[in-house]
Amino acid sequence: MIIAGQPVSGTGDEIRGYDPAAGVDLEPAYRYGDDSHVDAACAAAAEAFGAYRATTAEQRAVFLETVADNIEAVRETLVPRAVAESGLPQARIAGEVGRTTGQLRLFAAVLREGSWNGARIDPAQPDRTPAPRADIRQREIPLGPVAVFGASNFPLAFSVAGGDTASALAAGCPVVVKGHDAHPGTSELVARAIAAAVSACGLPAGTFSLLFGSGPGLGTALVTDPHIKAVGFTGSRSGGTALVAAAAARPEPIPVYAEMSSINPVFLFDGALSTRAADLGRAFVASLTMGSGQFCTNPGLVIAVDGPGLDEFLAAARDALVDAPATPMLTRGIAQSYAKGVDALAAEADLVVRGSADGPEASCRAALFSTDAASFRASGVQQAEVFGSSSLVIRCADYADMASVAAALEGQLTATLQADEIDHPAAAALLPVLETKAGRILFNGWPTGVEVGYAMVHGGPYPATSDSRTTSVGARAIERFLRPVAYQDVPNALLPSAVADGNPDGLWRRVDGQLTRN
Amino acid sequence: MIIAGQPVSGTGDEIRGYDPAAGVDLEPAYRYGDDSHVDAACAAAAEAFGAYRATTAEQRAVFLETVADNIEAVRETLVPRAVAESGLPQARIAGEVGRTTGQLRLFAAVLREGSWNGARIDPAQPDRTPAPRADIRQREIPLGPVAVFGASNFPLAFSVAGGDTASALAAGCPVVVKGHDAHPGTSELVARAIAAAVSACGLPAGTFSLLFGSGPGLGTALVTDPHIKAVGFTGSRSGGTALVAAAAARPEPIPVYAEMSSINPVFLFDGALSTRAADLGRAFVASLTMGSGQFCTNPGLVIAVDGPGLDEFLAAARDALVDAPATPMLTRGIAQSYAKGVDALAAEADLVVRGSADGPEASCRAALFSTDAASFRASGVQQAEVFGSSSLVIRCADYADMASVAAALEGQLTATLQADEIDHPAAAALLPVLETKAGRILFNGWPTGVEVGYAMVHGGPYPATSDSRTTSVGARAIERFLRPVAYQDVPNALLPSAVADGNPDGLWRRVDGQLTRN
Repeated sequence: MIIAGQPVSGTGDEIRGYDPAAGVDLEPAYRYGDDSHVDAACAAAAEAFGAYRATTAEQRAVFLETVADNIEAVRETLVPRAVAESGLPQARIAGEVGRTTGQLRLFAAVLREGSWNGARIDPAQPDRTPAPRADIRQREIPLGPVAVFGASNFPLAFSVAGGDTASALAAGCPVVVKGHDAHPGTSELVARAIAAAVSACGLPAGTFSLLFGSGPGLGTALVTDPHIKAVGFTGSRSGGTALVAAAAARPEPIPVYAEMSSINPVFLFDGALSTRAADLGRAFVASLTMGSGQFCTNPGLVIAVDGPGLDEFLAAARDALVDAPATPMLTRGIAQSYAKGVDALAAEADLVVRGSADGPEASCRAALFSTDAASFRASGVQQAEVFGSSSLVIRCADYADMASVAAALEGQLTATLQADEIDHPAAAALLPVLETKAGRILFNGWPTGVEVGYAMVHGGPYPATSDSRTTSVGARAIERFLRPVAYQDVPNALLPSAVADGNPDGLWRRVDGQLTRN
Repeated sequence: MIIAGQPVSGTGDEIRGYDPAAGVDLEPAYRYGDDSHVDAACAAAAEAFGAYRATTAEQRAVFLETVADNIEAVRETLVPRAVAESGLPQARIAGEVGRTTGQLRLFAAVLREGSWNGARIDPAQPDRTPAPRADIRQREIPLGPVAVFGASNFPLAFSVAGGDTASALAAGCPVVVKGHDAHPGTSELVARAIAAAVSACGLPAGTFSLLFGSGPGLGTALVTDPHIKAVGFTGSRSGGTALVAAAAARPEPIPVYAEMSSINPVFLFDGALSTRAADLGRAFVASLTMGSGQFCTNPGLVIAVDGPGLDEFLAAARDALVDAPATPMLTRGIAQSYAKGVDALAAEADLVVRGSADGPEASCRAALFSTDAASFRASGVQQAEVFGSSSLVIRCADYADMASVAAALEGQLTATLQADEIDHPAAAALLPVLETKAGRILFNGWPTGVEVGYAMVHGGPYPATSDSRTTSVGARAIERFLRPVAYQDVPNALLPSAVADGNPDGLWRRVDGQLTRN
């Protein structure tokens, strides 16, 4: 573990990375921390907060870029370790390094652009009747130290220096990460890169710490530490729900941004099926099996009107899946959960095809099932996420049946429509329902693959996330760790520069409700 | 009650307005609703949601203006009824009508300006390597039906057509209000004005309903109704905390915006005390006793370094308070709570002065206490809000002692500094602490009086509110009822106009991260 810049060994259970492709445990052993480590990391974060939030946006931008540089500097060590600890292909992990450093650099750009300050000015109106108006200005400030829970499925991009950490650090919040047990070695390498950047940039050591520990134990202690003011989490519905409950039960409740569970429905319209059913079937399988299906946005549900088009789609999917090799999953536990989820589906739905059973111990044997709309609507099991390459096709009687499935859906990260131009009226009729169900709506694509940009929403109504008003990917993720403060008649010399006279920071500001850069 | 445009009589306990100035109950009697009324109102709101959110911003702006016009049209009836039900002076209530209609018109202006759409476009990059970038666009959509709890202390501006209702309706969310027992007649008049506007604007009847009922009974049923997607509340800490807990325990948890408890510390610096202690003492009393102290932003705490300046401040405050008449409080229950709160303070702190005891049955006899910093820091009672004209002065040994009080404060709506230019260094040292404690920081003013504008923050860390990232007053209140949706490769003809090609709505949009109106 790294606590405020110092390497610290834990006192609890031993954990090791596990190479699911080779089926072997990895050296060295790491140990779980205890409550004293949580206390130390959170106290250091609280102590660092004042000085860290007083840094300029430019200083924090340089810091994030330094973290990115430091991660790139250890790429030769980092990539093989992350490949070994995840069983994910080298190209995928190499891409994830770029995604991780790209996220850090995106937030550096966001900091420099400056709109995150939310600067607003309502100038005084001393002559207003019946009462004069005071001068009121508003800007955003950071919430305080943030706890981040690394995810298993993106050992870099959603882990120690992932989007939650990058956006919280950008906002001016010190970060305490609980690293995921699945990749302690990768976590250590990245944590060292961050700690080195903290030091090189002259920031307080408590700006960043990495801990290891169990979720119910150390994780709960972290979320309930009084110094922690917000939480970022990507993981299971049960894990996220437990953290939300723990945060709500604090004497001072705090926000939890938990990205949890989504089956990412894909709606196939008749026109699209009539022109490209087989292509869709193959592309679907490619999305379904990528990374052993271990994506939050894996297409776990396909909805279409029954008929020859859907048959053709299923035939193509069957052909593509039947010989698909069983591929390594991140951990033995995830592989066991996947097998259980598939068994539960098999008890309720019709099997279309399983992939090949040949694979290492902790591997994912793809599975495709089918059911009908009435059965789906009546079932809890069929709507539960099965993390891995498992999907369920719903044969609908007609578009009204399809709409009833859409209406019955829980909240989702994504909803996809495969629709040709001839399908646009039917698609348009479904769109308002899908908007209320999902954070991102895609046409003629596949939900896996989440762009990191300014317009992305990686979020959605419960249980996709615990807070549908936010995104955990993309520029707006910084907003989760900010809150507004108003300044009434504060003398200019004491105002933060974001809202000072003369716009010294050159920001876009809302003056009397109108955006201006003057 | 008004359910989806229809007047409905309840089946439960009878309630009546109470005129605290005259000490008499008012006609007519109203009755509490039951769960069937909650079901009906929420189902109607859910049914209305699709059509209501499909209205244009201009249509909703006209609707809000029609509500404002309708309220003004019944002003002659409304003002005396609200005066009778609140015991508040006629000029205050008349001003509150203007504030209420002003809020509605502010949100009409916000709707027309259009930035609430949060329009963002990351254009496709088909030639990007290694993979092309999809076209991704983002806008905000309404959460769904909103439950609003009317507050007792602003029978118009924080009640049936208050800021929560106005901002939720602006966002495109139908609203179900639980009217406050303290002003059922006022609530009915305003509800009829809204329902008439719903009808005149051709909106679905379920866009608005008004219910009466107990908080633990009907209020809980309302918050846990599955159709309700967010809650606005202004009231007590216990009431708000109960609603937050009920919302968190739902199968689908929803956000609760509860504005609860604040004692609004006022810091008097030495320079200010040396030049204007007596003026400050008198102005403090004016703020403290206005409206019988029944403001969320009432100055319940004064912090200063002990010495002749503070003595002079206290002497002036004592002189101003000693003859202050006991003034009516909103309800008998509030007057009883006030008396209990004052008794609890009296048991721990030194009495400076009480106001006159002469007044009606449910009245507020002002109270001023003093204590020292160590006693305050060690006490829960001294930091608890006493709703009414009660305040506590903390005599500090020095500025370090003052800072220790600031650090020990719970979250607040406001923090005020009375500081001359000579005090600026000391004030500047305290500002970073106060930013982490309060939603609004004032210089040389008094916290009562909350401007409704673009830059106002009426919010703050827990327990001031349940969500420090938001404001319940001012333009940004609309953001509480919106969530972002991303559209990936959606054909232009199917895109919402806010993010369509050519910017048909003429909005400020963020394109590749840069604000533009093109």
